[in-house]
Amino acid sequence: MSAQSAQSSFTNTLMPQPSKLTAEPGGFILKPSFTVAAPQFRDGRLDAAIGRTLHRLEYETGIPVAKDIHKDPAGASLIIEVKGAGEVIQSVDEDESYSLHVTANGAKLQANTVVGALRGMETLLQLVQPDHSTYFLPAVSIEDTPRFRWRGLMIDCGRHFEPVPVIKRTLDGMAAVKLNVFHWHLSEDQGFRIESKLYPKLAGMGSDGLYYTQEQAKEVVAYARERGIRVIPEFDMPGHSSAWFVGYPEISSGSGPYEIRREFGISDVAMDPTRDSTYKFLDGFVGEMSAIFPDPYFHIGGDETNGVQWKGNPRIVEFMQKHDLKDTAALQAYFNQRLLKILVKYHKHMIGWDEVLNPALPKDVVVQSWRGEASLAAGAKQGYQGILSAPYYLDGMKSAEQHYLADPLPANSDLTPEQRSLILGGEVCMWGEQLYERTIDSRIWPRTAAMAERFWSPENVRDVDDMYRRLNTVSIRLEVFGLTHLTQEDVGLRALTGSADIDAMRVFASILEPVSFGERYEGQHTSQLTPLNRLVDAVRPDPPSRYEVQVLVHALLENPSQHSDEKHQLEAAFSAWKAAAPKVQQRVTASPLLTEDAAARAQQFAQLAEIGSQALAYLAGASSAPTGWKQNSLTVLDNAKKPGGLVRFTVLGPLRDLVNAVQEK
Amino acid sequence: MSAQSAQSSFTNTLMPQPSKLTAEPGGFILKPSFTVAAPQFRDGRLDAAIGRTLHRLEYETGIPVAKDIHKDPAGASLIIEVKGAGEVIQSVDEDESYSLHVTANGAKLQANTVVGALRGMETLLQLVQPDHSTYFLPAVSIEDTPRFRWRGLMIDCGRHFEPVPVIKRTLDGMAAVKLNVFHWHLSEDQGFRIESKLYPKLAGMGSDGLYYTQEQAKEVVAYARERGIRVIPEFDMPGHSSAWFVGYPEISSGSGPYEIRREFGISDVAMDPTRDSTYKFLDGFVGEMSAIFPDPYFHIGGDETNGVQWKGNPRIVEFMQKHDLKDTAALQAYFNQRLLKILVKYHKHMIGWDEVLNPALPKDVVVQSWRGEASLAAGAKQGYQGILSAPYYLDGMKSAEQHYLADPLPANSDLTPEQRSLILGGEVCMWGEQLYERTIDSRIWPRTAAMAERFWSPENVRDVDDMYRRLNTVSIRLEVFGLTHLTQEDVGLRALTGSADIDAMRVFASILEPVSFGERYEGQHTSQLTPLNRLVDAVRPDPPSRYEVQVLVHALLENPSQHSDEKHQLEAAFSAWKAAAPKVQQRVTASPLLTEDAAARAQQFAQLAEIGSQALAYLAGASSAPTGWKQNSLTVLDNAKKPGGLVRFTVLGPLRDLVNAVQEK
Repeated sequence: MSAQSAQSSFTNTLMPQPSKLTAEPGGFILKPSFTVAAPQFRDGRLDAAIGRTLHRLEYETGIPVAKDIHKDPAGASLIIEVKGAGEVIQSVDEDESYSLHVTANGAKLQANTVVGALRGMETLLQLVQPDHSTYFLPAVSIEDTPRFRWRGLMIDCGRHFEPVPVIKRTLDGMAAVKLNVFHWHLSEDQGFRIESKLYPKLAGMGSDGLYYTQEQAKEVVAYARERGIRVIPEFDMPGHSSAWFVGYPEISSGSGPYEIRREFGISDVAMDPTRDSTYKFLDGFVGEMSAIFPDPYFHIGGDETNGVQWKGNPRIVEFMQKHDLKDTAALQAYFNQRLLKILVKYHKHMIGWDEVLNPALPKDVVVQSWRGEASLAAGAKQGYQGILSAPYYLDGMKSAEQHYLADPLPANSDLTPEQRSLILGGEVCMWGEQLYERTIDSRIWPRTAAMAERFWSPENVRDVDDMYRRLNTVSIRLEVFGLTHLTQEDVGLRALTGSADIDAMRVFASILEPVSFGERYEGQHTSQLTPLNRLVDAVRPDPPSRYEVQVLVHALLENPSQHSDEKHQLEAAFSAWKAAAPKVQQRVTASPLLTEDAAARAQQFAQLAEIGSQALAYLAGASSAPTGWKQNSLTVLDNAKKPGGLVRFTVLGPLRDLVNAVQEK
Repeated sequence: MSAQSAQSSFTNTLMPQPSKLTAEPGGFILKPSFTVAAPQFRDGRLDAAIGRTLHRLEYETGIPVAKDIHKDPAGASLIIEVKGAGEVIQSVDEDESYSLHVTANGAKLQANTVVGALRGMETLLQLVQPDHSTYFLPAVSIEDTPRFRWRGLMIDCGRHFEPVPVIKRTLDGMAAVKLNVFHWHLSEDQGFRIESKLYPKLAGMGSDGLYYTQEQAKEVVAYARERGIRVIPEFDMPGHSSAWFVGYPEISSGSGPYEIRREFGISDVAMDPTRDSTYKFLDGFVGEMSAIFPDPYFHIGGDETNGVQWKGNPRIVEFMQKHDLKDTAALQAYFNQRLLKILVKYHKHMIGWDEVLNPALPKDVVVQSWRGEASLAAGAKQGYQGILSAPYYLDGMKSAEQHYLADPLPANSDLTPEQRSLILGGEVCMWGEQLYERTIDSRIWPRTAAMAERFWSPENVRDVDDMYRRLNTVSIRLEVFGLTHLTQEDVGLRALTGSADIDAMRVFASILEPVSFGERYEGQHTSQLTPLNRLVDAVRPDPPSRYEVQVLVHALLENPSQHSDEKHQLEAAFSAWKAAAPKVQQRVTASPLLTEDAAARAQQFAQLAEIGSQALAYLAGASSAPTGWKQNSLTVLDNAKKPGGLVRFTVLGPLRDLVNAVQEK
């Protein structure tokens, strides 16, 4: 092969960042003569992944790529050397490391396992860049291995069902950012979501017909494995279990009959931990599910059982007294111990939320912490493995920055090295109260990519500016899988306005984001039956405006004379808001649904535009702010911060800073 | 129930327009107390459709609606009176008529069949409008019945496979505009797309693994039936059949071996019509498919068999001589006669493209005309039933207007009343050479809605202005089914520019559309393996700009003094183009793929903006056009009309009219 080096240099848009990377100028130019060789180990999984990689390469560049995989590495553009298949059932200890070297002559990807090669191929695809009239792979040397072994995303399909295509495109996105655990929350008070042939009334009566067949579940497990992703099912027990009892009231602690619960929040019902028949039922169920989910971990939930139904049942109270169980926590620990025996029988490790933590349980139980780092550390000090979820709740509608900076194992942790090794990693949590298949993508993406980097990349990769720069690119790349996180906002705006002309509404929506799950619940009292069709469902958490306006304002205020470019960008933004505002005020009257949420916000939007423009003018010294302007402006900002329409403005902080920087005459 | 009439009046956004409609002021206000009663016939299909209707009503309005269906009509907001189930297997003669009456007291929908009720429910949903702070159903009386019995959409899943979710969302869209036939083109030279258990190598070797299982096909048939849509499978024979022969070369007229054909266009291969074994094979196959597709029609394709393989096989030539078959058309007629016997055995009527037309075939054969109205009329004169497809080819990238005005049975037709009754209707055709699951929606929608109106509504519903006005609304309503016709353009623009900031590119793309299938094929020589990732794949056929600019310019030129509003709209449009042009010229350099297609077009875009602005200024008389301006401008427009980048501008005609109207000094 005659090498012809690229002229351009590497622009780092990788996410997650690799452990070690060095770059040289130039690189390998992509041409239709591109060929692939896998001279060492090959199997169906590797071949399929290479096929997908070549298709994506071809799709991105338009350069036709032959799909044959050669044995002979001589002259190949991309050589993929894999030592072996890796684990038959991927575990938390799977070797995911790889190295990738690109020169003007081509690329070489090396890995011990197919999973390592999968990770490397995602990096390779992220490397592709334009080089004037063609595309190239920049000359880099990458040695990469994950910081944490457990990098998960939990999706709650109990409260709202998510169809298989949604799960698959999410798995594609996960693989692209090197996540390796799909935690599938399959049962809730609001729905039991998988077919049981042993207990057909579980899904038959507990799901409104919205459940995964066993065949579909196996399809998802296989799809995930092809992408190096483990699937851990969660069946929440003994609480969060109303949907089980619709068909099988006999395993509950009350007398029934039960209905699928439509309200959210903690319910009083729970399984009956005192009867052998409950465990017999669960033994059958766990056995059946074990045949579908090969992962060695089985998530039993265990959270938020309030004990009300137990305390209200004299037979259960008597049982507690007889067995010296002093409170309902002790009764739950008893339940977990018996459940653990069933899991052990089926060769499963137990994983559960904080509440399962109990000295009576053996040390191979993994604790998933929704309560926070302190709770996680406390578990590690007792010798339990743990994964952190508390700071990674997507329904809090926090910024990618907030999630990104939360570390499962912070530098200042007081854990010993041995205890530190018990922190397996983290899991992003997508609870399902207020989302459904049309809105889930914008809640998960792109923020989850930032957390994926936290879990994969070295601890010191913490530059928020750089993260946001790369996040924008990753977000666009994710659309190739059919993810709708960027398009769904427009769909919502068109539906709400009944108009295809949404230019002005887009500008308005660009500085709005949903309020948190809790605030919306307070404001709207959502249940499973609430239509999710409002402005809050259309807008996206942490839209680019939030960080961009903040950065521009801070740069400008730090040194106004040196940041004329920032000033012009802000002027342009405020002008665009001002230009859009009248049309927005007219458009929000298009439908009652929109008027209710957005009429006040649209007025405030016009005011924010005005304040921003004025502040810039006053700061530039063209004229002085009249007395009272500052106080009036701050009052407007205060009002815009008040709850309303289930959405909030993303730019109030920097606008306040701008106003405060103005000198009145 | 205490009635409270709405204050607003009916705005007609129905598509298709009903046969008869009268409207009164006011209407029925939607409230959470909304109830439904179905006091007469009910079955699972009706109940499910009512459930979907209530969900959509609730989703659109945000008003919680109880889902119970009452028996007692007293006090119900919506009464659905259905006489009976309709046909067990929906036929071309199914009664689809309904009547719908809305007063201030509520709505009553009456139909003889469940299918009629389905049509009426779609009309009901299209009626919903805002009324100040709530929503209402306008007071209308509708009597509705389709003009044509056969209103179809064909999708070619042979050349590119379309996954089941794509088919389902398309069926939802079809039902929304009252189409009633899904013609499923399942085999092609490029792919055999359905599982055969009898001949597993058909899909096993002929599909690249991209095929529908029998279970999935049954699921699609059931999904369609729930929506009152017949499913007619097409297996193209004896030509267009390379994919069959990969696994079964013995039914071909050559010796093989065969591969899946990647090139498009007419291939030389065909089934062997001379051997009994061919018919034995087809008997088994048709029998197997008949169990999956209950529709009485079976489409055998029959188009574009060029006879090359027949003429090259001495055994076949000898057979022709022996049986006095004077040419290959006669041989194909012989094949069709034997195939017909098989269809009859399985109680199927034959349907095929023009080429099947042959006096030797009985009169229950239906001819689908891709050759045009004349061919269709010729068939009718011979006594054959027919459906028109020629003017409804979506891949010609024609405007909705062109499709809309093409009538299966034009007013000036010379057919006798009896012959006219043989014209069953029309079918929109979506051929699959240059599309795939990401781009198919924008090719089908919204243009197909205009054709659906042509097939359903009275002949005299031909007002193009009114059609476009309603089409914009229908287009937005279709997004509720997950159709991506409006969002996919943005996805493409982001992928091509690598940027989330596509405001300027959107303005550019808004006046571009794809060239026709043929022009693209000439320009790019697409095959099945061509990545469909270019600007032409992103932009949409007949975007709103085309008609809007044309209407504005013509109004202005007709009477400039009376159309200042149009003038301002045009000025705003040209200003927006001008403002976007510099950024577009920069953005198109972002990727080689985009530069190749769009660099020249971006320059022309800037020129068009300039010419438009100047023309308006000269027409306003502020100054005179310098000598030569007109000629120069026309030259620019001529250049912009030349092929380039596989896309064309939508606004050249009206710009030319503007330029021509300018007086030079």
